[in-house]
Amino acid sequence: MSSEDPYLKALELAKRRGIFYQSSEIYGGVGGFIDYGPNGARLKANLIDEWRRIFVNSLPDLVYEVETPIIVPEAVLKASGHVDNFTDLVTQCSKCGRVYRVDHMLEELGIDTSGKSTEELSSTLARLDGCPVCGGKLNQAESYNLLFRTSIGPYSSLVGYLRPETAQGIFPMFRRIYEVTREKEAFGIAQVGRVGRNEISPRGGDIRLREFTQMELEFFFDPELRSSPLFSRLANERLNLRRDSGNAQPVSMTGKAAVSSGLISNEWLAAAMIMGKQFLIRLGIPEESHYYLEVPADKRAHYSKQTWDLMARLANDNWTEVAGLSYRGDFDLKAHAHASGVDLRAFKRLDTPIVKQEKRFKWDPVRIREKYGPMTGEVIKSLSDMSEDDILRAISAGYFEVNGQRIDTSMFSVEDVSKAESGVHYYMHVAEGSFGADRLMHVMLAHALTQREGRAVLAIPRYLANPQVGVLPLMKKDGLDLTARDLVSGLVRARLAPTYDDEGAIGRRYARLDEVGVPVAVTVDYQTLEDSTVTLRDRDTWEQVRVRLSDLPEKLRQFIYEGAQLRELGERAASPAKD
Amino acid sequence: MSSEDPYLKALELAKRRGIFYQSSEIYGGVGGFIDYGPNGARLKANLIDEWRRIFVNSLPDLVYEVETPIIVPEAVLKASGHVDNFTDLVTQCSKCGRVYRVDHMLEELGIDTSGKSTEELSSTLARLDGCPVCGGKLNQAESYNLLFRTSIGPYSSLVGYLRPETAQGIFPMFRRIYEVTREKEAFGIAQVGRVGRNEISPRGGDIRLREFTQMELEFFFDPELRSSPLFSRLANERLNLRRDSGNAQPVSMTGKAAVSSGLISNEWLAAAMIMGKQFLIRLGIPEESHYYLEVPADKRAHYSKQTWDLMARLANDNWTEVAGLSYRGDFDLKAHAHASGVDLRAFKRLDTPIVKQEKRFKWDPVRIREKYGPMTGEVIKSLSDMSEDDILRAISAGYFEVNGQRIDTSMFSVEDVSKAESGVHYYMHVAEGSFGADRLMHVMLAHALTQREGRAVLAIPRYLANPQVGVLPLMKKDGLDLTARDLVSGLVRARLAPTYDDEGAIGRRYARLDEVGVPVAVTVDYQTLEDSTVTLRDRDTWEQVRVRLSDLPEKLRQFIYEGAQLRELGERAASPAKD
Repeated sequence: MSSEDPYLKALELAKRRGIFYQSSEIYGGVGGFIDYGPNGARLKANLIDEWRRIFVNSLPDLVYEVETPIIVPEAVLKASGHVDNFTDLVTQCSKCGRVYRVDHMLEELGIDTSGKSTEELSSTLARLDGCPVCGGKLNQAESYNLLFRTSIGPYSSLVGYLRPETAQGIFPMFRRIYEVTREKEAFGIAQVGRVGRNEISPRGGDIRLREFTQMELEFFFDPELRSSPLFSRLANERLNLRRDSGNAQPVSMTGKAAVSSGLISNEWLAAAMIMGKQFLIRLGIPEESHYYLEVPADKRAHYSKQTWDLMARLANDNWTEVAGLSYRGDFDLKAHAHASGVDLRAFKRLDTPIVKQEKRFKWDPVRIREKYGPMTGEVIKSLSDMSEDDILRAISAGYFEVNGQRIDTSMFSVEDVSKAESGVHYYMHVAEGSFGADRLMHVMLAHALTQREGRAVLAIPRYLANPQVGVLPLMKKDGLDLTARDLVSGLVRARLAPTYDDEGAIGRRYARLDEVGVPVAVTVDYQTLEDSTVTLRDRDTWEQVRVRLSDLPEKLRQFIYEGAQLRELGERAASPAKD
Repeated sequence: MSSEDPYLKALELAKRRGIFYQSSEIYGGVGGFIDYGPNGARLKANLIDEWRRIFVNSLPDLVYEVETPIIVPEAVLKASGHVDNFTDLVTQCSKCGRVYRVDHMLEELGIDTSGKSTEELSSTLARLDGCPVCGGKLNQAESYNLLFRTSIGPYSSLVGYLRPETAQGIFPMFRRIYEVTREKEAFGIAQVGRVGRNEISPRGGDIRLREFTQMELEFFFDPELRSSPLFSRLANERLNLRRDSGNAQPVSMTGKAAVSSGLISNEWLAAAMIMGKQFLIRLGIPEESHYYLEVPADKRAHYSKQTWDLMARLANDNWTEVAGLSYRGDFDLKAHAHASGVDLRAFKRLDTPIVKQEKRFKWDPVRIREKYGPMTGEVIKSLSDMSEDDILRAISAGYFEVNGQRIDTSMFSVEDVSKAESGVHYYMHVAEGSFGADRLMHVMLAHALTQREGRAVLAIPRYLANPQVGVLPLMKKDGLDLTARDLVSGLVRARLAPTYDDEGAIGRRYARLDEVGVPVAVTVDYQTLEDSTVTLRDRDTWEQVRVRLSDLPEKLRQFIYEGAQLRELGERAASPAKD
C-alpha cells in the first residue's frame, strides 16, 4: 500500500488526534488491543447509538435490548459448541516455539487451504521449508481454542470464559424474554458489548482485535410463518450480493428477489441485511463501498446454516469484514435446552385446534397369552416397536413374525380416533446480524478523511460527530472570550456538545476542528457585541453565515441532526471572520 | 428484613418485570453475575447517560471520555499494586474445602477485625468452633487475589487480567491525553465500562457482583494550585459527611467549609463529591438517603490518601456503598512511570523563570590529598553525604570529623550561584470518583417503588424511563389500533421511545405500564377520530388531560425532560378514558 493509501492516512490521523492508540503503549503494548482517546470514545459511542437507532429504537415492541456479563460459565459455551469448535488450526515451531495460524501461513504462500483436513494440512506443512523465522521444523497442525479462559471464585474447578459473541448471553435468557414480552411469534433481542477472542497473532493490516465491541441482533421467529411484517416494509430495497470468494462481481437485486429465488434463506435474515446496508450508509460509507459475500459451507461457523459477510472498503483494494449475518436455525435454542434440561420451546396456540386422525390398535392380552404363553411379552414388545404402516400391513396379511414364528393377527383390532391439540411447541429459528463497532470505526474514518486545499478534513456525518460545535472568540480580549464561554454553557444546557478554543490564529483553530471532524464552528467577533449575531462556518464547504445568538441552539440542531444546508440557516457572511 | 422491606419488593418486581435476573439461570446460575432484561438494560443505559451528562458533557474542555480494554497485561496491574495488594484474607476448611472471607466470617460472629494482623486473625480463627458448615478445622488465614486471571495469545507466559477498575486503563494513557488536550494544569479523564472482581462468595444481601459497570472520573491537577475553578462554582453546596463507622450521625456542611477545615483533602475531590451528590438526587434518591462516610486509614485501598464512600439507603436500615471518592495523590502516575520507564510528569511553564539561589561548595582536591593522603576518598564522600546545613556548620566551626579525625575546612570555599528554570516537571495528583452503575440501579429501583391503591408503581424519574410513552388504543377495532400504530411510528421519528399495547382492559394496561415505570400513557379513543385529540395519563398522579395529536411530541418532551406538570399540557380530561 502506498503512502497515499487513504486508510493508512486515516490511521495516522487517528493516532495523532487522540482518536485511538495501541493499548498499554507505555509498556510496549500487546497486539490486538486498542484504546479510544478523547476524540474517539464519544465518536464510537455515537456510532453505536446510530446502530441502536436503526436496529432497536426504530422497532419498538419488536426488538428488545438486554445486557449480560462478559464472563460466562463453561456450561454455556460447552452447550453452544464454542469450547469444542471455536478453534483455529495452529502449528508450533519445534525449535523457537513460535506459533502460527496454519491457514494464514499457507495462504500467504499462495496455497489454497479450503476443504483440506487437518492431516492434509499437516503434510503440506511438512513439505515447507520450516519456520519462517528460524527455519526449525514445524509441528503437526493442531486445534487452538480462541476463548479467553479464567476461573470463577476460589474453587478453581469453576471455569469461566470471556464470551466470544454477545449472542451467548442472549440464548440462555430466551425463555425469560419470551415470557415477559408476551410470547410473540417473532421478535428480536439485541445486545451491544465487549467480547474476547484470543487470536494467535493479530495483524494490524486486517484490524484483528482480541477484544472488541459487538452490536448484535438475534431475530427469533416461527419458521413456518414465511412472511415477516418487517421485511415487507423493506423488501424493495436493493442489496449487493456476491456468492463466491472468486473474482465474481457483486450482483444488485431487491431483497424480495433474493429471498424468492432462495439466495437468502429467509425474510428475517434479509431484513437484517437490508438494515445493515442502511446502517453503513448512515455512517457515511457509500453503497458502492460495501456488499454481502456468502461464506462457503466449509468456512461457516459450526452453528450456521447460511452466512453473509458484510464487506466494506477501507481503501482501493483493501476490503474488510465488518459484520456477519447468519441464519442459525434452531441450533442454539436446541443446544441450550438439551444441555440445561430447560424447555426453551415456544408455544403456538392455534385458531382452530389441530384434530389429528390416528389409528389406535387394540389387542386382548388374555387371548394372546392363551395362544402364545411365554412368548406373550415378546409379541407385545414387537408390536410396540412396529410402525403404524407395519402393523396395518401385518393385519392385512393376517400375520407377522416374531423370532421366525407366525403370529396370528385375528386377536388385533384397529380403531380410528381423533385427537385435538390446542397448539404446538416448537423451537424458534434465529437470524442474526453481528456487527463489529471497532472495524466500522476504521472504515468510517477511512471514508471520512478528505483533503481540502492540502489540509486534512475529517468529514464524518454531522450527527455522529463529537464535539459537535467549536466555539471560537475572534480575540482573547474585549469580552469576546467571556461571551464565547457563556455561549458554551448555553449550548451545554441545550444538550449539544461544544468545545471552546481561543489559542492561536482563527485559521489554525478552524483547521484543528476540521481535522477531528467538528461539523460547525461558531465565531464570536466584535459585531457579536453590537448585534448579538455570530458566524457559523461549515466544516465541509467552509461557507459562513450570520445567525442570531438566540436562534443558535435550534439552528445548530437543524444543521447537525436534520441535514440542513448552512445557507438555509442565515445570511451569507459578508466579510468572513479572519485573523 | 420483613416482607414489607421496600428493597426486597423492588427486587421481586425487577425479576418479574424483566428488569434483571440471575445470569445463566437455566444452568443453575453463578453467584455475582446478573443479566439485564428488556425493561432493565435501557434503564441502566439511561442512568449511565445521566452520570455522563453531569461528569462529562457538562464540563466540555475539562473532562474527556476514553474507552480502554477490559483485559490488561500483567505489567499494568503489577505497577498499580493490584497484583500484590488487591487481596482479601481467606481461610479454607481443611475438611470440606470451603473457602471463607476472614473479615466477613469474624464480623458475622461479632468479632472486630480492624487493625488486626494476618497472624492475629489466624489465631482468632483457631479458637473458633471450626467450619460453619462441616465443623472441620480452619486453615491459617492467607491472601487471595481478586483479579480474574487469563492468558493472552498462544504463548501462555503472557498473563492478562480483567481490570478491577477502569482507572487502570486511564493512567497508562495519561501522557497521550495530556498532550492531545494541550497540557492543561487540571483536567479530567472519564471512563465507563465493565470491571471484574473475583469475589470469594458474593452474597445477595450486599449486592456484591463479580462483574459490574463502573463509571469513573479521574481529575488530574497540579497540587500546588490550591483553587479549582470547578469547585468555586460548587463550593456553597452542602454535603452530608460522617467521619467514623460508629454511631455518629452525618454532619451537614458546605463544600467550602469541609475543604477549609481540612476535612476533605482538596478542592477537586470535594467537587467530585458534590457532583456525586447531585447525581444521586437526579436518580430520584433524596438527600436524606445518602451521605459520605470517611474510610479509616487501615481499611483504605493501597493507593489512597483519603477515601469517602458514598453510602445510599436501600431500605430502612439497609445502606450500601454506591461510590468511592478517593484522593490518590501521585501514587498511580509515579508507579506507572517507574515501572514503564516513561516520563509521566506534567510540565509547568513559569511566567517568570524561577531563579534559585544555591550555594556551591568548592574544594581543592590537590590540597586535600597533600594533607590527608589515603583518606582523601573518604573525606570527599563524607562531603557529598552532608547536607548543605551540615557543611555550612562545619565551615563556621572550622572542621568536621571523618572516622573520629578532624578535617580542616580552610581548604573549602562557598560561592553563591543563581540558576534559572523556565518551568518545572511534576507529577499531577489525582482525585477520583468511582461509581457503581449496578448498585445505583438497585438503590434507584428501591426508591422508585411506590404503592397507589394497592398497586405497584415504579416512579423512576421520567427522564430516565424507557419506554417513555405507552400508546394504547381504547379498543382494538374501528381504526383506533391503526391510528395508535401510526402514532407510535411518529413518536419513533421524533426520537422518543414508545411502546404499544392493545391487550386487555385499559385499566390493566395502565397498571402494566405503571409497574415498569413508563411515565405517561397516550390513549387513542373515539374522540380522537373526530377531533385529533388524545388523552395523556400521568403515571404518578393518574391525572388525565386532552392534547392535540400534532402537539404531542413537543408536549411529551416537556413532560419527560423538562419536568412539566401534566395539567400544564392540556385541558383536564372531562371523562377519563375507561374500559
